[in-house]
Amino acid sequence: MTALTDALPLPEPLRQVLAAALEAVDPYLAVKRALETPDPPTQALLAAPRVVVIALGKAAFPMARAAREVLGERIARGVVVTKAGYAPDDALPGFRVHIGGHPVPTEGSVRAAAAIFAALRGLRPEDAVLLLISGGGSALATAPHLPLTLADMQRTTALLLASGAAIEEINAVRKHLDAVKGGGLARAAAPARVVALVLSDVLGDPLDAIASGPAVPDPTTFADAWQVLASRGLTDRLPPAVREWLQRGLRGEVPETPKPGDPLFARVHHRIVGNLALAVEAAAAEARRRGFHTAIATTALQGEAGEIGRGLAAVLQEMARRDRPLPRPACLLLGGETTVTLGETHGLGGRNQELALAAVEALAGLPDVWLISFATDGTDGPTDAAGAVATGETLARARTLGLAPADFLRRHDAYHFWDAVGGLLRTGPTQTNVNDLMLLVTMPPRATA
Amino acid sequence: MTALTDALPLPEPLRQVLAAALEAVDPYLAVKRALETPDPPTQALLAAPRVVVIALGKAAFPMARAAREVLGERIARGVVVTKAGYAPDDALPGFRVHIGGHPVPTEGSVRAAAAIFAALRGLRPEDAVLLLISGGGSALATAPHLPLTLADMQRTTALLLASGAAIEEINAVRKHLDAVKGGGLARAAAPARVVALVLSDVLGDPLDAIASGPAVPDPTTFADAWQVLASRGLTDRLPPAVREWLQRGLRGEVPETPKPGDPLFARVHHRIVGNLALAVEAAAAEARRRGFHTAIATTALQGEAGEIGRGLAAVLQEMARRDRPLPRPACLLLGGETTVTLGETHGLGGRNQELALAAVEALAGLPDVWLISFATDGTDGPTDAAGAVATGETLARARTLGLAPADFLRRHDAYHFWDAVGGLLRTGPTQTNVNDLMLLVTMPPRATA
Repeated sequence: MTALTDALPLPEPLRQVLAAALEAVDPYLAVKRALETPDPPTQALLAAPRVVVIALGKAAFPMARAAREVLGERIARGVVVTKAGYAPDDALPGFRVHIGGHPVPTEGSVRAAAAIFAALRGLRPEDAVLLLISGGGSALATAPHLPLTLADMQRTTALLLASGAAIEEINAVRKHLDAVKGGGLARAAAPARVVALVLSDVLGDPLDAIASGPAVPDPTTFADAWQVLASRGLTDRLPPAVREWLQRGLRGEVPETPKPGDPLFARVHHRIVGNLALAVEAAAAEARRRGFHTAIATTALQGEAGEIGRGLAAVLQEMARRDRPLPRPACLLLGGETTVTLGETHGLGGRNQELALAAVEALAGLPDVWLISFATDGTDGPTDAAGAVATGETLARARTLGLAPADFLRRHDAYHFWDAVGGLLRTGPTQTNVNDLMLLVTMPPRATA
Repeated sequence: MTALTDALPLPEPLRQVLAAALEAVDPYLAVKRALETPDPPTQALLAAPRVVVIALGKAAFPMARAAREVLGERIARGVVVTKAGYAPDDALPGFRVHIGGHPVPTEGSVRAAAAIFAALRGLRPEDAVLLLISGGGSALATAPHLPLTLADMQRTTALLLASGAAIEEINAVRKHLDAVKGGGLARAAAPARVVALVLSDVLGDPLDAIASGPAVPDPTTFADAWQVLASRGLTDRLPPAVREWLQRGLRGEVPETPKPGDPLFARVHHRIVGNLALAVEAAAAEARRRGFHTAIATTALQGEAGEIGRGLAAVLQEMARRDRPLPRPACLLLGGETTVTLGETHGLGGRNQELALAAVEALAGLPDVWLISFATDGTDGPTDAAGAVATGETLARARTLGLAPADFLRRHDAYHFWDAVGGLLRTGPTQTNVNDLMLLVTMPPRATA
C-alpha cells in the first residue's frame, strides 16, 4: 500500500480504502499492468522490432518509467513531455524529457511538440509507437501550424473563453490550428502501428478530449471551427494570421484533420488504463473486504460543490439514522468532479473542501459517520490539501473555536475552516489524476472502530 | 388507488408508485388509520366521555372528517381552521369552519384562534382533546397577547426576515408574542388529556416547528427572544407595544411559555400520522411489488434544485449504463425539499420542475430512464403542476422545438420548457403536503415496459 495515505486523520480501514483507490490509478502501475497483460494490439507492439515511446501529460514520467522497465532496450526513441516539477532530476535511460507549460502553453510546449514530431519521423509499417497519455497534455505540447505563433493560439483561446464558448467548441477551433491535436500524432506516426495507453482525467473518458485527442479522429471541420467563431461575432477580432489560416482551410488549401473512418486509424488502438471508475471500484472492493456494506452511487458526479455536499449529507443522515440505503457499517462511494462558483472576493479552498464543509451542519451529532471528499491528484484547488473529512463532531469542534461553517462557505474559505478545526486530508501530490472521490461512511460501533 | 395520478404521462407502474405515496399520506386516511389502530393514549381519548376536536392547518378539513366518522356524536365541540379553498362548502356536522390567512396571517387568523380557545374552555380532567395538526397552521391561527395587534406581529416578523434571522430564531420571538404557539394550546386544553395527530410538512418532523408547535414545550425564553432581536440591532425598531411586552416578560411580569418538563405535558401525546418518510416508504414498497430493485437514498434531501438535479442525473446515468447502485429495472427514491434561488427577473417554475430540467442534458440518449420530481401537495411553485419528469428522449424533443434546457434553467423558467416539451405532472391539489419525492427509474426492457 502506498504511504501517501498513512498520515491521514482517518480510521485505518478508511486510509486503506483511499490507498486502494490511488493504487488502482497509479500511472506507473497502470502502464506496468497494461504491458504485462497485453491485449492483441499491445502484443503486436511488444513484438515490433523498434518502438518509439511518447509520454505526454502530467503523469508522463512514471508512465514512461514503467514502459522503460518492460520494453528496455527495444525503445528506439523516447520522449517525455510533462509539467515542471513532475519529472525527477535523474534521467530515464533512452528518454529525452521536455517541460511544457501548464495550464497555459509556453514556448517550452512548442519545443516539446517539435521533439515529439522529430521522434515520430521516418517510421516504417513494422515499427510501433507507444503513446502514454494523461491529463494536461493539451497545454504541455502545442504545434501551431506555420505561420501561426503561440501568441496567435493564446489570443484565440482567450477570445473563445471570454465569449462563453463550450469546451467542445473551443476544441473544434484548436484542433484546426494545432498539428498535435485532433489526431495529429496518429498522422505523424503513420505508417507505424500505434497503441495509446490513456490515464483519463475527463469524466466519461471521451478520448477526443483527453489531452485534446492526439491520436483520435476529429469529426469537426474547418467549417465547424469557423461557425463557432462566426456565431459569436469573433471572426473580425481574430489575429490576422489565424483568420487567414482558417479561410485557407475553408477553401481546401490546407489539409483537414483526420476524420472518423480514415484508414489511418485502423492501426491505432486506444486503451484506458486508469480512470475514475477504476479508482472508485478499487475503493469499493477494499471497503467490501473490510466488512462495509458497499455501493457505488455514481462515477460521473457533477454540480456545485456546496449544494452537492448538502445532498450527500442528507444521504449520510439516512444511513446513520435509518440504516438505508445501506446498513451500518457502510461505505457509499461516488466519483466525479464538482465545481465552485466564486464571488468577486473569496478565501482559500477547493471543491472537495467546500463539499465537505457544506455537509457539516447536517451531520452534527450523528455518531460515527465520515464524509470524505478528495482529489485523486492530491491537490484540491490552490491548496496543499487533497480534500477534507467531515464527521458528526466537526460542528461541535468548530463551535468551541467560535467558527461557523456558514460564514466560511459564504466566503468560499473552506481551507481556513478545515485547517483550524482539523479535517484536511494531505497526501501530497499523487502523480495521478482521475478527478475526485467521495465516501459516505458509517463506521462499526465504536468498540471495533 | 387515487385517481389523482391516473392522467400522468408516466408508465402505469410509475403512476401506481406515485399513487401509493400519496395514499400513504392522505390526511383523511392517515387520521382514520390512527384512530382505528389506536395506541394507548389514543385508546384513552376514544374512551373519554367528551372529546373536543381542533383541526388546524391546510389539511384540517379531511383530517376532521375522518375524526367525525370515527368519533361521531362523541365530539362535544369541533373547530376546523384552514385555508380558503381547502374546505368544501358542505358543512361537517358538529364542526365550525374558520378560514385563516396563509401564508400571511389575517384578522381571520385572529378570529380562528379565538374560536379554538373558546372551544377549549372549561374542560375537565376526564375530557379529551384531539388536535389534528398539519402545515400552514402558524399563519392560519394567531392570538397576539393583549395588547399586541396583528400588525405588531407582522411588523416584527418582517424585521426578523429582513435581518436574515434563522427560522428557529424567528420562532423563538413569535412564540413569546402569540398565545397559540409554543405550547399555548396544551395550556389552554388542560386539565383535559390531549392527543395530537400530526401530518408533518417539515423535514425531520420537528414537532415544535410544525404549525409552530401549539402543544409542544418551548425551550426558549423571553431572554432568548430578546437576545435574537438585540443581536441584530432590532430592539429599537420594534413596534413599541412589542418592545414593552417583551420587557415585561424579561421582568417576569407575564407568564413564560410552558417549558420542557412542565407537568402539563404529561397528559399530551403527539403522534406523527403522515410524513415524508411514510410517503417514500410506501412508494418504495409499491415499486418493489412491481418488480423494481428498490432503495431509499434519503428522506431529508436539501439543496439548490438545479445542482441536486445534476447530481441525481449522474446517479441515474450510472444506473442506466452500469446497473449500479441498483440493477435494471430499478427505482431509487429520495424525499426532501430543494430550493430555487431566483435572480431579479425570472420566468415561471417550481423547485421540482427545475430539478428535472437540470437533469435533461445528462440523461440524453439513455434508454428507458425516468427522473421524476414532484411535490406531494400537487403544487410546485406558483404553477398548476406538481412537478416534472425527464427521460432520455427529452433533450431530442426539445431540440426539434428549438429549445435549449440551459436557457430555461438560466431564466428559472422550467414551467414553460416542460409545458412545450411535455413532461409536466399535473395531479391537481392533493390535500396533503409532506414535501417532495424524487424517483430515479430504469424501466424493464421496452417489450415489457
